[in-house]
Amino acid sequence: MSALATAIYRGRERVPALDPADRGLAYGDGLFETMRVSGAAVPWWDAHLARLAHGAQRLGIPKPDTAWLAEAAAALLADAPSEAVLKLVLTRGVGGRGYAAPETPQPTLLLSVHPLPAPFDGPLTLRWCDTRLALQPRLAGLKHLNRLEQVLARAEWNDAAIHEGLVLDAAGRVTCATAANVFAFIGGRWLTPALHEAGVAGIARGWVLANAPGAQEAELRPADIESAGALFLCNAVRGILPVGRLGSIDWAPHPALDELRRRLRRDVPAF
Amino acid sequence: MSALATAIYRGRERVPALDPADRGLAYGDGLFETMRVSGAAVPWWDAHLARLAHGAQRLGIPKPDTAWLAEAAAALLADAPSEAVLKLVLTRGVGGRGYAAPETPQPTLLLSVHPLPAPFDGPLTLRWCDTRLALQPRLAGLKHLNRLEQVLARAEWNDAAIHEGLVLDAAGRVTCATAANVFAFIGGRWLTPALHEAGVAGIARGWVLANAPGAQEAELRPADIESAGALFLCNAVRGILPVGRLGSIDWAPHPALDELRRRLRRDVPAF
Repeated sequence: MSALATAIYRGRERVPALDPADRGLAYGDGLFETMRVSGAAVPWWDAHLARLAHGAQRLGIPKPDTAWLAEAAAALLADAPSEAVLKLVLTRGVGGRGYAAPETPQPTLLLSVHPLPAPFDGPLTLRWCDTRLALQPRLAGLKHLNRLEQVLARAEWNDAAIHEGLVLDAAGRVTCATAANVFAFIGGRWLTPALHEAGVAGIARGWVLANAPGAQEAELRPADIESAGALFLCNAVRGILPVGRLGSIDWAPHPALDELRRRLRRDVPAF
Repeated sequence: MSALATAIYRGRERVPALDPADRGLAYGDGLFETMRVSGAAVPWWDAHLARLAHGAQRLGIPKPDTAWLAEAAAALLADAPSEAVLKLVLTRGVGGRGYAAPETPQPTLLLSVHPLPAPFDGPLTLRWCDTRLALQPRLAGLKHLNRLEQVLARAEWNDAAIHEGLVLDAAGRVTCATAANVFAFIGGRWLTPALHEAGVAGIARGWVLANAPGAQEAELRPADIESAGALFLCNAVRGILPVGRLGSIDWAPHPALDELRRRLRRDVPAF
């Protein structure tokens, strides 16, 4: 699946191609954002940019100017379908052969527009993945480009009837799905893993934590998930999708989940 | 530092540029090799290709045909300096937005020639890094493209008098330097970390394990390193370099290390 449109910048200069010496390729030395486009705009733009800035700060990559980036994205979206996905990759730019970063890195920015996935309203069918996520507090929570663990976890199944897989960290704690965060309804509240040592702190997850009454981070084991009253996955492309089945366990629609989805739709009509 | 020459292949077809949708950039979904070129040839070619094949098998990436790859490398080296560095990057190729790999991936191969670093015969000055390597048995030993931990460790110092940093894994075991393996002379033998849970199993390390009498893998703690009779780092570009200082500890030249370096030079005159 190729992108519908792509723009590559070195600093603020648009360039025709990626430099083969880019540290994004050499070391995964960068970050990305995957954004829902609706009405030719990005509803959660500010949240994506805030996460990008936070990740850049933690990795020591200069962050792009916000106003300039908004213009670059708007220019690319002007000719794109009004409902789509916008992907942003920010790398530390071109470097030499070694791990030492250039003293004054000139970041690479890659923007690409992709078709919106086929409409799907759930419920999702999940599996447990065997691949465990390593514990790395220095990188936990960031949407960085080192994603081989997710590739390995996603490669565990090719049954199209299974939509996603839940992944544990090396300590046996539920962390996330391969490309989404997870929430479980336990004791009348929505709980989600804390992600201090592994996982990606998603934008939709942030919305739920800020908007679902009583939602909070918690340590969750597989048994907690399997005995939850309701379960959903969320990400910035699909919003909130209910889980209907995990292995041999089934869940019926749950009023708390229906209410949360209505609330999300009021806030972000795209979902 | 740009490459002296570069060639990019999609499958066996030479292409002018990297596709921005390459999974090597998106996820670090690939492997690399860094090879010493001497006399316009690669002395450890077979060992590099064997490691690449092993890594490709573990990640499920189709490995390039050996004879074809040798021809592609020879073509690039024909116009290069006879003493140089050849870098090879193999990725799973172009993919869509998701982690699921294409059913029939067409790998990307990137070959680039780089200048040989300035001659340096040691001794090395080292430091301890604070960055710990996460434990991930699924990826340990592989020279894959997820190298943010090495980038973070190398970013801990910018004092040119310090050549390298030793890195521990999350369990506190000595694992490697940021871009080299480490051997310590303890009890009359050369010992090196086992790398079952973190680290890269280097080609020069393999040579030492096969050629130094009694050399073997062992669990090493910082105190073992600091009390060793001699210490060296090794990689495929520099060969074996003695360590002269680590923090406040100094080592004098050691006859066992001199002997090992002579043996390496007999086997591979480039070193």
